[in-house]
Amino acid sequence: MDLLFLGTGSGVPAKHRNVSSIALKLLEERNSIWMFDCGEATQHQILNTTLKPRKIEKIFITHMHGDHIFGLPGLLSSRAFQGGETPLTIYGPKGIKQYVLSSLRFSASHIKYPINFIEFNEEGVIFEDNQFKVIVKKLKHGIPSYGFRIEESDHEGTLLAENLKDLGVPFGPLFGKLKNGETVTLQDGRVIDGKNYIGPTQKGRIVTILGDTLKTDNSIELSKDTDVLVHESTFNHSDIKLATSYNHSTNIQAAMVAKEAKAKMLLLTHISARYLTKDVQALQKEARVVFKNTHVMYDLKEINIPLEKTGAEY
Amino acid sequence: MDLLFLGTGSGVPAKHRNVSSIALKLLEERNSIWMFDCGEATQHQILNTTLKPRKIEKIFITHMHGDHIFGLPGLLSSRAFQGGETPLTIYGPKGIKQYVLSSLRFSASHIKYPINFIEFNEEGVIFEDNQFKVIVKKLKHGIPSYGFRIEESDHEGTLLAENLKDLGVPFGPLFGKLKNGETVTLQDGRVIDGKNYIGPTQKGRIVTILGDTLKTDNSIELSKDTDVLVHESTFNHSDIKLATSYNHSTNIQAAMVAKEAKAKMLLLTHISARYLTKDVQALQKEARVVFKNTHVMYDLKEINIPLEKTGAEY
Repeated sequence: MDLLFLGTGSGVPAKHRNVSSIALKLLEERNSIWMFDCGEATQHQILNTTLKPRKIEKIFITHMHGDHIFGLPGLLSSRAFQGGETPLTIYGPKGIKQYVLSSLRFSASHIKYPINFIEFNEEGVIFEDNQFKVIVKKLKHGIPSYGFRIEESDHEGTLLAENLKDLGVPFGPLFGKLKNGETVTLQDGRVIDGKNYIGPTQKGRIVTILGDTLKTDNSIELSKDTDVLVHESTFNHSDIKLATSYNHSTNIQAAMVAKEAKAKMLLLTHISARYLTKDVQALQKEARVVFKNTHVMYDLKEINIPLEKTGAEY
Repeated sequence: MDLLFLGTGSGVPAKHRNVSSIALKLLEERNSIWMFDCGEATQHQILNTTLKPRKIEKIFITHMHGDHIFGLPGLLSSRAFQGGETPLTIYGPKGIKQYVLSSLRFSASHIKYPINFIEFNEEGVIFEDNQFKVIVKKLKHGIPSYGFRIEESDHEGTLLAENLKDLGVPFGPLFGKLKNGETVTLQDGRVIDGKNYIGPTQKGRIVTILGDTLKTDNSIELSKDTDVLVHESTFNHSDIKLATSYNHSTNIQAAMVAKEAKAKMLLLTHISARYLTKDVQALQKEARVVFKNTHVMYDLKEINIPLEKTGAEY
């Protein structure tokens, strides 16, 4: 499980920061990619990665501003052009379906794979299978903007095969029974309880990705104990008046959300192009005063999120 | 007058060729820029040039395929964001207005400048002022696709002031009369006919930019005696079957159009990403057998089109 930042700028593209898009790589988990937002030229950014558009299984859209959606029609078309045949589901605010379908219709684009749309107005669980659950809540941004909490199911412990071998348990059907937690009796009369030979359960990971927003309680709720929180930081806290007038957050506000939610790691994105390299360094440094494990993201930065560790490896 | 190629690839973006867009720089002529097509990430390409989006006066769209229009909503939004306040006119096939307006509406984009739309179904003159005339004709491409012939008005000759000074004509109101072609009588009785002291008229330039197309008569009509013909060459002639099945042209077909139209220069664009550097060199070489002054374009290549020369300077 890795987060690959495809665009970390705000509003308009700049040379070194494209508009918003993040790929959640679930290659080991389900051999697929989930995308979060798709600003213009997201598919161009993908050309500089190993991502395969045909592996995109789901696209989650936080809100309908152009810098978060204008790359969708092109990416969907190219996915078809590049042989994508598996279904794709787009989750987004009301309007996303009509926007995508009208863009594809006006451009006479032939998409050979099914696109499912799930538009949300209400908060709650928008996806759940035996591996993952995705919860959506509304944020505060002038137009409807949403945040996503992606919860992985716990990983059941694996059979401690080495220990069983040491006990002299013969490899074969008995292993299967022990793995299921059953009790078996060996030929020499010893009784072995499988439950004692299952490794510890590994806690599933939690990733929270928020759309553009002012500081709001739902951000904290979505981020509760999350392994990784991705939060916008369009402005530095010294520009808080500007931030508020544009319905955006500052670095310090993002750090406060991470702290209040007891998140394990904070990744800042959606950085205004007004800030030069040294300003961005300062923005990170200041946020760390409030929440230590804060990192400003840049385009094509990849963050691994391992199992059973305290926070992702930076 | 310069042609700046922003995207010279076909269908989907590739690392070294973006999808279609061309800027006709009319900075000396009218301090503005005319764009032809606007594929996704055209605004990103502009970041690598000196073009100012606020100087874009007109955008001409050849046809509605995604690789020619998906960059429009983003470019229009960024033009507003970057302080563009002057009106902009978009010329395109039926549907372009609804596509643009719905994209801007879904994305809640605030465009502070007026956008005028001129949709064409018929062939003919779609723009004319005292400097330029633009003629549109339909091509052959599966969906409606158009070509544009941009004709510059002739530049009137300037007054040969040095010659008049040599004759002893006093600088002042007489110069104005002579400039208007009037006849004046000097104090010493000599009669001077202004018409004899006006330099030669400079012929206006002609630029022809065609959308995606099969070889068709209208391409030749639009290109008659043109200084520069921009023609798609998606395929090499060895792939003519593919070209025809996708409603595209080959290098040789483009060269034949240039030759039959007696164009002065042929610029090939919309090159399939399947061709590697050496293939593209071959594509150019082969086209030159039919039409010598042929050049394959690449992203960010700029071509100056001077007055009163045989063809543009390559």
